[in-house]
Amino acid sequence: MSKSPAPSAPVTPARPSAGSLEPLFNPRSIALVGATERSVWSIAAVDNLRRFGYAGRVHMINPKGGTIFGSEAAPTCSAVGEPIDAALLMVPESKMLEVFDDLHNAGIGGAVILSGGFAETGDGGRQRQQQIADKARVAGIRMLGPNCLGYANFVAGTPIWTTPLRRAGGTPQVALVSQSGALASQLEQFAHQQRVGLTHMISTGNEADVQVADAIEYLAAQPEPRAIALFLESVRDPVRFEHAIDAANAAGKPVVVLKVGSSEASAKAAQAHTGSLVGNDRVFDALCRKLGLSRVHSLEELVVTSDLFARLGAIHGGGVAFIAMSGGMCEIITDQAEAEAIELPTLSADTGRALREVLPPLATPNNPLDVTGAAMVEPELIARSLRTLAQDPKIAALSFVFDTPPKEDARGFARRFIGQVGAGFRESGKPCVMFSHTFSGVTGEARALTEELGVIYSGGGVRHGLNALGQLLRHGAWQRSARTARNVVPEAALRPDSERAVLDFLADRGVPVIPAQVVTSAEAAAACAQKLATPVVLKIASPDIRHKTEVGGVALGLGDAEAVRAAYEQMMQRVQAARPDARLDGVIVSPMRGSGVELFVGTMRDPQWGPAIAVGLGGVFVEVLKDTSLRLLPVCEDDALTMLSELRGSALLDGFRGAPAVDRAALAKIIVAIGDAALALGPDLVSLEINPLLAFDGGIEALDGLTVWEDAREQH
Amino acid sequence: MSKSPAPSAPVTPARPSAGSLEPLFNPRSIALVGATERSVWSIAAVDNLRRFGYAGRVHMINPKGGTIFGSEAAPTCSAVGEPIDAALLMVPESKMLEVFDDLHNAGIGGAVILSGGFAETGDGGRQRQQQIADKARVAGIRMLGPNCLGYANFVAGTPIWTTPLRRAGGTPQVALVSQSGALASQLEQFAHQQRVGLTHMISTGNEADVQVADAIEYLAAQPEPRAIALFLESVRDPVRFEHAIDAANAAGKPVVVLKVGSSEASAKAAQAHTGSLVGNDRVFDALCRKLGLSRVHSLEELVVTSDLFARLGAIHGGGVAFIAMSGGMCEIITDQAEAEAIELPTLSADTGRALREVLPPLATPNNPLDVTGAAMVEPELIARSLRTLAQDPKIAALSFVFDTPPKEDARGFARRFIGQVGAGFRESGKPCVMFSHTFSGVTGEARALTEELGVIYSGGGVRHGLNALGQLLRHGAWQRSARTARNVVPEAALRPDSERAVLDFLADRGVPVIPAQVVTSAEAAAACAQKLATPVVLKIASPDIRHKTEVGGVALGLGDAEAVRAAYEQMMQRVQAARPDARLDGVIVSPMRGSGVELFVGTMRDPQWGPAIAVGLGGVFVEVLKDTSLRLLPVCEDDALTMLSELRGSALLDGFRGAPAVDRAALAKIIVAIGDAALALGPDLVSLEINPLLAFDGGIEALDGLTVWEDAREQH
Repeated sequence: MSKSPAPSAPVTPARPSAGSLEPLFNPRSIALVGATERSVWSIAAVDNLRRFGYAGRVHMINPKGGTIFGSEAAPTCSAVGEPIDAALLMVPESKMLEVFDDLHNAGIGGAVILSGGFAETGDGGRQRQQQIADKARVAGIRMLGPNCLGYANFVAGTPIWTTPLRRAGGTPQVALVSQSGALASQLEQFAHQQRVGLTHMISTGNEADVQVADAIEYLAAQPEPRAIALFLESVRDPVRFEHAIDAANAAGKPVVVLKVGSSEASAKAAQAHTGSLVGNDRVFDALCRKLGLSRVHSLEELVVTSDLFARLGAIHGGGVAFIAMSGGMCEIITDQAEAEAIELPTLSADTGRALREVLPPLATPNNPLDVTGAAMVEPELIARSLRTLAQDPKIAALSFVFDTPPKEDARGFARRFIGQVGAGFRESGKPCVMFSHTFSGVTGEARALTEELGVIYSGGGVRHGLNALGQLLRHGAWQRSARTARNVVPEAALRPDSERAVLDFLADRGVPVIPAQVVTSAEAAAACAQKLATPVVLKIASPDIRHKTEVGGVALGLGDAEAVRAAYEQMMQRVQAARPDARLDGVIVSPMRGSGVELFVGTMRDPQWGPAIAVGLGGVFVEVLKDTSLRLLPVCEDDALTMLSELRGSALLDGFRGAPAVDRAALAKIIVAIGDAALALGPDLVSLEINPLLAFDGGIEALDGLTVWEDAREQH
Repeated sequence: MSKSPAPSAPVTPARPSAGSLEPLFNPRSIALVGATERSVWSIAAVDNLRRFGYAGRVHMINPKGGTIFGSEAAPTCSAVGEPIDAALLMVPESKMLEVFDDLHNAGIGGAVILSGGFAETGDGGRQRQQQIADKARVAGIRMLGPNCLGYANFVAGTPIWTTPLRRAGGTPQVALVSQSGALASQLEQFAHQQRVGLTHMISTGNEADVQVADAIEYLAAQPEPRAIALFLESVRDPVRFEHAIDAANAAGKPVVVLKVGSSEASAKAAQAHTGSLVGNDRVFDALCRKLGLSRVHSLEELVVTSDLFARLGAIHGGGVAFIAMSGGMCEIITDQAEAEAIELPTLSADTGRALREVLPPLATPNNPLDVTGAAMVEPELIARSLRTLAQDPKIAALSFVFDTPPKEDARGFARRFIGQVGAGFRESGKPCVMFSHTFSGVTGEARALTEELGVIYSGGGVRHGLNALGQLLRHGAWQRSARTARNVVPEAALRPDSERAVLDFLADRGVPVIPAQVVTSAEAAAACAQKLATPVVLKIASPDIRHKTEVGGVALGLGDAEAVRAAYEQMMQRVQAARPDARLDGVIVSPMRGSGVELFVGTMRDPQWGPAIAVGLGGVFVEVLKDTSLRLLPVCEDDALTMLSELRGSALLDGFRGAPAVDRAALAKIIVAIGDAALALGPDLVSLEINPLLAFDGGIEALDGLTVWEDAREQH
């Protein structure tokens, strides 16, 4: 505090690197602009700095001067006469431009703006926010907010936070970024109750400058955070966001996200057909799969999961072995593991034999393993069981269910028991975690004891614990999966917009399409049919007609030359009568395909996240059940295979009712080719749909293709 | 304790009503048989009785005599010379028969058996358990266990529990029944942490006599429990179980259940076709719907939900209004409410206007309502908002999100704030509840303060709180739904087992079936077809042939007499060649139906829960997607309508691709009739399947019917 300048923090000039976030998030001196003893915000900010033992200088700034919180207030930052890194702005919105001039003059590098009255109030506020953002950029000031509660850098002991804040409990390993300041407070409280140590907590408010992406990228570069918890309402800059998540993953700091609401912008995408099939929230899910974001659905899951990411890391391969001390708990774990798609490997015969030797007579070697209440009398049982289970090659991680006593007991039982758990954990050589039975707060003593004895303990209980384990396993799988999808460069000149042009384009790109020939006379149609030597289909060829059936522009199953000729003439007459305005290029002649499995493959363009691809079974599956799997593009063949396996009707591909099985590998190649084709068509493409893509005994073929373009959403 | 007999508990003769559970669960005196100071079980049992201040006499029984826990031990119960209501048996399994003779002689009414070594160990143990059960029945002794931890009657201050136990915190309102003693302990611990007051806690162990059904029926008759929490592994006697749940509901005590594992017995049902479509766990779900059981999926949900049932009761009709103090929390509530199918009514214009008058300028009248941090300064905002929202007729219940401070603060803020919440709750005149933001333990002070100020507060957090609210709303809907399904008496003489016999039987029972005539000559077939004046279908009529298509026993779409004649002759030849053994009754002639919506209606018989009915859309929907809705029989038309709405492909009934919409009311009547028909066929019927039931423009018709019988599962 400025009352007692810390001798260990010598006054040096403010950092020169304008644009860096270091002065903002790790300032060596702070100005509280608009500080007053009558404001709860000022009181909280000053109390927090004091309680955290902030080592730098803190300057009170108030145009009225006087003594504030025991310090002589300066009228402006420039008047302080010392270098200042960061300022907390608690002044009315109307003074903000003036204040920024002062910050500029004082050479301040970072500003935290508590004040509201900006973009959150409407257009006028948005303009005023833009004005200060412009000023800040010119002045090289990085800005958090406006309309935010601030941040706390727990590892540096630096809070610029405007509601009462505790010091973090537990070893700080989790960084927290939230677009809601109030929820950041709630998360901090919950983290403290669970003794989950926070390294940083950043609330980004209106994000006039620093967005969640910047905060995440800053945290990715810090040594302390081992995982990042993110509360997200909307992403302002998708490109920066993706880049930041990539940076965090590259730094080995997985990001766990609680995302609420549906994006306003994405609603636009729903206009395209494929878009209306999927919905915005599923696009975010697809983004999570792409970026390796672990998505959770409650505040509790956000904290419990990021804590376990920080302490265990992603888990690679295989299943999990569980140990509990009652049969009932083992049954709960079995049900819950299934719900979380956690594999509970059946123990090998060797493991079973080895377990029988270490277990009491009544216990049966199973997974989950019920070691019975006997372990309370003989805690060595736990260590032995863990060690034995860990030798099973199918076991990638181990978990034991037990509630840490809130404090060490006089007779040392807790220490002895947890000590055995720790011994088992260490000797297993695999990731191990102990969960409480149900949600329960973790005391500082319990956290210290478990850490001392080498036990990773979560008070999240079995339900949240298994949910988190599922995320750790999925993230491990994501890390392993080769990101082999190649990026395709858009080729702006391409713009196929008739059925035939779309199919020809797809054929050029490696997608098998149904043979077809455009003919302009009944005779040519009949000749073409004879050459094909199979019943044929006639379809009207016109760039102006989208729904061919409605104008009588489709004739199916024509068996002989006579029928083809007649169908040609009738079709021309019908279509001309129905659509005298339409340009008719002739008639498309194609072989008539027999039955098979119809698939739907369609791409869409999310306004935020860009092109995505949906795959589904055709007909009622996609139209009634909306049974599709979605990924952002590009996708690789592994992605496409996973997509197929995700379909509810997936079994139809395996040869339903005696039909031949669909060649999934070939299908996956085609899906990748369609996705790449859509990318090649560039950013004006709204949607490329192949419906149906037919898998029949002769192979797989696109029977129809459709493109929708940005400036003409109804074209073929 | 026997050391200091309570003068308020005069010694009277043991209750005469043999068979009553009163001596077991509310004894006026207790014998601890096998008590010894060297056993942790004895120590815990004695400590618990002391800590609870048990008012009756406690007798130590040990054949060695001597002073145990300060009391003179008697060698047997008979030797005590005083009436004893209940005994806790902590003796080896080998002594048990002898001990029961002693209990009989001593006129003891209830026995709690801690000892294991019975049915849980295999066949030998099962026999020994039966022996003591027989003895107990003869002696009129009601028995809890064996292999159980006991019970605690918190309202009477009577624990017969063999691990350390606390007195309950919070007003006792929730009774707990668990088949696992260890999980009962965990649930008690968690309930205490949340200050959820327990009235009773009963662990039923091996259930040689008292089953969960008996415990629930006993609790239903007690005045204190207002809801019952049940941890269930398997139900031994389905009839008693249903009866007990009915009794609890009739007494206004909803039952919340956490059910694990899948029933061994139900696996049998999977052999029948419909059974393989559904699975055992779904049968239990159907049972929950029938009985009004609220099924939860974690220990936390079990406690939080039964607590809210006890304090709020079921909620009837309409949606819920939520108030929170941040926009972020409102967004979380919106997402979560959707996940729990809780309606968040849009506020009426009147409510909006009224709210605008009471809210600060920046707050917007919405549901959820963000009252902003301003409420911290002006808590009256909460009361006013609650009052105003409650006037909206669409709002059935209200909820406010706020964490109770762990203790009253010096300046009385907590009291003032919670007081305003309580005022708003009272004035609303509707069910109201306050949830913490995230899971958090509830202190005794917090519980007392909220109770004093009229605030129902749950520390379960928003996720579990909304989950529980969803259950309260669904239970309210269940209570309202008229249980109009009538019971059908089986008619043993009926046993239709050919397709024609099944369809004729269904027709008699009000199910429209396709017209059909069995003919025995090609001429008769042609004549019949001409009379129908529509293309016809021929099907071989034989009780010995199940899969008609495979033997060439089906011919479709025969347009003229010649074709019918030819088809008849060919079919007879083909079938005779393929199945020379089969009895052929002739050929069935039916009109050929055009396209329509194919449905599947099938009944199954669960070995535990009896007949059930599954409804689905036909073809791939039921065969690949297993998209069925399941109910236990009988069902009423409302049930059938709900079943149709539950189907994923439900939209197909509304006229997909221009097809006419299916008359859902008519369809529901037919489903009820099919269910009733299955009931009429009695307990030997394994399955009655109508596949397809065709809804076409001419109406709804059963096209094919199949029965499977207990002693001949492969018959037609």
